[in-house]
Amino acid sequence: MRSSYATVSVIISSSFVHQFRRTFISLKAMATEDSLRRALADKQSTIDARGTAIRQLKSSGASKSEIDEAVKALNALKLEKTSIESQLKASISGDANGSAVSRDAFRQAVVNTLERRLFYIPAFKIYRGVAGLYDYGPPGCAVKSNVLAFWRQHFVLEEDMLEVDCPCVTPEVVLKASGHVDKFTDLMVKDEKTGNCYRADHLLKDYCKDKLENDLTMSADKAAELKHVLAILDDLSGEQLGAKIKEYGIVAPDTKNPLSDPYPFNLMFQTQIGPSGASTGYMRPETAQGIFVNFRDLYYYNGNKLPFAAAQIGQAFRNEISPRQGLLRVREFTLAEIEHFVDPDDKSHPKYSEVSKLEFLMFPRDEQMSGQSAKKLCLGEAVSKGTVNNQTLAYFIGRVYLFLTLLGIDKNRLRFRQHLPNEMAHYAADCWDAEIESSYGWIECVGIADRSAYDLRAHTDKSGVALVAQEKFAEPKEVEKLVITPVKKELGLAFKGSQKNVVEALETMNEKEALDMKAALETKGEVEFEVCTLQKTVTIKKHMVTIAKEIKKEHQRVFTPSVIEPSFGIGRIIYCLYEHSFYMRPSKAGDEQLNVFRFPPLVAPIKCTVFPLVQNQKYEEVAKQISKSLTAAGISNKKDITGTSIGKRYARTDELGVPFAVTVDSTSSVTIRERDSKDQIRVNVDEVAAVIKDVSEGRSEWDDIKKKYPAHTAASADE
Amino acid sequence: MRSSYATVSVIISSSFVHQFRRTFISLKAMATEDSLRRALADKQSTIDARGTAIRQLKSSGASKSEIDEAVKALNALKLEKTSIESQLKASISGDANGSAVSRDAFRQAVVNTLERRLFYIPAFKIYRGVAGLYDYGPPGCAVKSNVLAFWRQHFVLEEDMLEVDCPCVTPEVVLKASGHVDKFTDLMVKDEKTGNCYRADHLLKDYCKDKLENDLTMSADKAAELKHVLAILDDLSGEQLGAKIKEYGIVAPDTKNPLSDPYPFNLMFQTQIGPSGASTGYMRPETAQGIFVNFRDLYYYNGNKLPFAAAQIGQAFRNEISPRQGLLRVREFTLAEIEHFVDPDDKSHPKYSEVSKLEFLMFPRDEQMSGQSAKKLCLGEAVSKGTVNNQTLAYFIGRVYLFLTLLGIDKNRLRFRQHLPNEMAHYAADCWDAEIESSYGWIECVGIADRSAYDLRAHTDKSGVALVAQEKFAEPKEVEKLVITPVKKELGLAFKGSQKNVVEALETMNEKEALDMKAALETKGEVEFEVCTLQKTVTIKKHMVTIAKEIKKEHQRVFTPSVIEPSFGIGRIIYCLYEHSFYMRPSKAGDEQLNVFRFPPLVAPIKCTVFPLVQNQKYEEVAKQISKSLTAAGISNKKDITGTSIGKRYARTDELGVPFAVTVDSTSSVTIRERDSKDQIRVNVDEVAAVIKDVSEGRSEWDDIKKKYPAHTAASADE
Repeated sequence: MRSSYATVSVIISSSFVHQFRRTFISLKAMATEDSLRRALADKQSTIDARGTAIRQLKSSGASKSEIDEAVKALNALKLEKTSIESQLKASISGDANGSAVSRDAFRQAVVNTLERRLFYIPAFKIYRGVAGLYDYGPPGCAVKSNVLAFWRQHFVLEEDMLEVDCPCVTPEVVLKASGHVDKFTDLMVKDEKTGNCYRADHLLKDYCKDKLENDLTMSADKAAELKHVLAILDDLSGEQLGAKIKEYGIVAPDTKNPLSDPYPFNLMFQTQIGPSGASTGYMRPETAQGIFVNFRDLYYYNGNKLPFAAAQIGQAFRNEISPRQGLLRVREFTLAEIEHFVDPDDKSHPKYSEVSKLEFLMFPRDEQMSGQSAKKLCLGEAVSKGTVNNQTLAYFIGRVYLFLTLLGIDKNRLRFRQHLPNEMAHYAADCWDAEIESSYGWIECVGIADRSAYDLRAHTDKSGVALVAQEKFAEPKEVEKLVITPVKKELGLAFKGSQKNVVEALETMNEKEALDMKAALETKGEVEFEVCTLQKTVTIKKHMVTIAKEIKKEHQRVFTPSVIEPSFGIGRIIYCLYEHSFYMRPSKAGDEQLNVFRFPPLVAPIKCTVFPLVQNQKYEEVAKQISKSLTAAGISNKKDITGTSIGKRYARTDELGVPFAVTVDSTSSVTIRERDSKDQIRVNVDEVAAVIKDVSEGRSEWDDIKKKYPAHTAASADE
Repeated sequence: MRSSYATVSVIISSSFVHQFRRTFISLKAMATEDSLRRALADKQSTIDARGTAIRQLKSSGASKSEIDEAVKALNALKLEKTSIESQLKASISGDANGSAVSRDAFRQAVVNTLERRLFYIPAFKIYRGVAGLYDYGPPGCAVKSNVLAFWRQHFVLEEDMLEVDCPCVTPEVVLKASGHVDKFTDLMVKDEKTGNCYRADHLLKDYCKDKLENDLTMSADKAAELKHVLAILDDLSGEQLGAKIKEYGIVAPDTKNPLSDPYPFNLMFQTQIGPSGASTGYMRPETAQGIFVNFRDLYYYNGNKLPFAAAQIGQAFRNEISPRQGLLRVREFTLAEIEHFVDPDDKSHPKYSEVSKLEFLMFPRDEQMSGQSAKKLCLGEAVSKGTVNNQTLAYFIGRVYLFLTLLGIDKNRLRFRQHLPNEMAHYAADCWDAEIESSYGWIECVGIADRSAYDLRAHTDKSGVALVAQEKFAEPKEVEKLVITPVKKELGLAFKGSQKNVVEALETMNEKEALDMKAALETKGEVEFEVCTLQKTVTIKKHMVTIAKEIKKEHQRVFTPSVIEPSFGIGRIIYCLYEHSFYMRPSKAGDEQLNVFRFPPLVAPIKCTVFPLVQNQKYEEVAKQISKSLTAAGISNKKDITGTSIGKRYARTDELGVPFAVTVDSTSSVTIRERDSKDQIRVNVDEVAAVIKDVSEGRSEWDDIKKKYPAHTAASADE
């Protein structure tokens, strides 16, 4: 099964993770909602009964006062019903972050700011765009390159990784070996008249959610059924999904036309390599395969030593059926992936002690299954208790935690969630997702998986090139080994030109196959044997092969390394960072709300703005000099010499998340203002660049700088 | 016409440039070759004549001594012929850089080193690779990211450009507007039996070159013809190419089968966006279009001011028919493109004076046409003489020169070649390529083109969104303007529901069309008029429209900006850099040649290696500390604690181009060795990181550092 970014093998729809989790988390909310639905149904039947009673009173000629009293009681019941309805509505839409309404409003405010300031915009907008494709405008592009530069420093440089850069265009054979050609699919239905396509699970999910939110008269049992469907949505086969769609009478949302049965759609963009039409290629759905196929060269480059990690940053592509959720589900995105190769018998990590004392929100499997929520755990304890499978996996979890929080992700809205058994592939040893809470819920942004030897074995099998490591023994070891010795002369006589194929097939039998053959030959004297390369079965007789256990001296151990894979969805991290960094504060006059991104300097698209306080040749000259010295120091900066009021200019750059603003109000010294505190200090013109560089590159903190320089308190009219 | 990287409109095969140029440059060589061919033919006919004479002597019974003398003279002639043949061979294969043989040997040495040390390797090697796709291994990937980081500093940051990041997947409409769907093609022929594909021009080129190099008996006239074909190769139409292939009897090189007629093959990788099959997309062949379609937003972001530049770094894709020349012609590559938008009436540049005094090799159009070679020119003079069209174009030429030489490109093997008139699109104002000389000849690595308003107009026309700029006048200007006023009442009566289409069509007539209509209406009273949106022709009568010249007050000028486009092929630049940086020097013992890349620290994949002189716990601890402090300072470094001799370890990292090596030979101070001079200085352990950081980031030069610290002269056994 796959997470959105991890290497696939057995595939399930990528929305699985969130759906499943949501069901567990909201157990308490569900209980409330459930009892409200029952109370509502009870109230309705009481009302119905009272209505019948009143009609009977009327027809039996009861007194007016008697009837009036009954009607009054009925109206009171109806009021109570309305109140329950409101509670139920609130219970359905509400969650820990406040109501769905305020969540949507918050998102709208962030997204409006992001699009207006060109952090990102729909790509090809003048041609009405393409769903799931976005452009990063200047500030978004700068944020992205800062995030990637920090990723390189934090992972590649500090961990001494081997960075590679492989093509996006990938021949079919590679993705056949990895399983993507056969299994990287989502289930799709078609509008039978127009041919419009929809994701089958999305339609079913939308139907269930819509019903649950808007059909207040639905019975609690029906509600429970729909919730169950939501919970198991991604475990449903195509047939099961199709049956549910039929059962609920779900039609095409745009046209109300009937829908086809669900069928799998491969999510890779397909193309042809070269002009012949004979060489199918795909745009890679992940960057990992480029590393796996180079394992042998990289292992050699590393002096034939394990462990080592290779890393790659690059574009990946998924031809989503119907993308939604803005930057979170797109058709082209930047991945940063690490493949850490390690001896499966020794997954300790030399730098483990550097992260083992970290404490943060973790959400182990057991807590999810028993309906609890994520809790703060000490990473080292999680390893020693066996919650996290091994030190190397834990080391990367810790490093990812540091990476994300240093970028500015709120540590209270970041958790590491362990995959449930049914989310993981059979070969995976353990799997944790870094999930970040956003207005869309908890979003998987980094997957950290111990994939064992799966990927290297798959490519070894398909390519015939052994992707293995060796451990030289200090002295030779004696081991019992099954030795298969084909008797070539006999085989040659029996199979002539096919002899070579038969020999190869015999030699590559695994232990079980060989022992079975040995037993069969001893009892029956001959055995039927399938030779794949001949595509037929041959008869092997006793004298054609000897199979025996022998004691051998071995000088080295040859094994397929395990892979531990941290895989980062850069666009998702950046979007969550935007939400976590965004806030609004009133303008000085109090007449409007101003937007601010509280990016740390590390991430901020521009580190510093330079403003002459008033339009004035001398001040502009100073501003130009300061800007030039900042640029020379490699600090991105922006001059604003428009006549706009200084307050407006501050607001304009707060909205871009610029952490520092230099205002030129004399030719000898200037002020530096910090974005969030709005504190200002006074610094000599020739020191400005050095101060800004230090505080932007993390060598000094603003609080320390503030102590070194005089505060500037003469607030301007606008501040 | 297009260069390999520039935005296309009218397309010609990209090998054009080099072919054409080569012909002009080698005029002198050609003259020699020509006279040698004639001399050889003369000699041959003399030999033939003498042979005949000897036979006649024999048959006429001449004396033995007479015959012997004649034979001796004939043998002398044959020796002379052999000598001319050798000269001719040398003349054909030789060029300014020495013989083709030594050029190939040099390339082989560089490429072997690059592949062995994983600078780059054929992608998907374990599956036998895909032509034209390469992986960058660890050192190559580091070089690439250093080159891109410097590009960002040198262009985006220093020039205050708006960087954007757009998807590779591009909908058809965008590339239809840009001309790529219709014209981004190469001519291809197919093996009529196997279906193998070849580039038609390549086959013809190979045929001509092979003949010229190996057929020494070919007449000078025939040689001249083949050379002419090479010169005009890329001006040949499909029909002409086909005719030549037939005329010369060229067959499929692999099978000797006959070939199909040439037909155009579109070089874009095609795919489908979404599952419907109704939305064709392509992998972008360049990054420029993503900027053009965003012009309106970017102009707004820049405060509606011109000039400004947008920039983009990203992958681009070309489905080459049969890629060759290693990293120079690949199917996927990284482009860095700048689109500088400027008022067509004012192409001055504020920072022009910063580059106008630069002098470097330029190769203007006239020099090419008259068979001269590139010469050193002062950029400012080239502008004032009108050789370079405008200041902005010149400014970018100067900045590109600085960029390339700071990376380590040899300024004597870098030239700026102006496009010839037939290489440029009709709309282009001027075009210069930065060409770098490599073992493959002069390679176009950066194209710098003034594309006028072409691209923005194309997208305006196709999208209906006006991609224009405004210049507000200080005070309104009076201008004579043609005013078209459709009489809606009359048109409504005549055309009913189609009235709106007719009105629109009338209003959007250009000046010539309107004046023609005015004349026709005045003479004939009515005129046939084609309404595109109705797909028919209607009759317009005199009373339906008034067309008149009027004096109008205008408050602003609306215009389509010109685009000046510097476009960088990053992979090509890096490959040329490898060749320019590579050299060999003897080992100390003199028993082998060692490879060195003399990368400047800016580019070097690793800035510093750290070696304990001998395997020793204390030294290793110091090495570890130094490495850690380098990493913390953001300096990429590598420890080598193997027991290999120090000389071998130096050689190993020289081959990776690591500029500095720290050798730990005590716990208090260590040596720093510079790669090319092999000079060593002694520095205290706690100063090492700061010294290496300064000299790696260009704040100090090695020569200055050397003066500050004591030289270390006790050469180790290996040095």
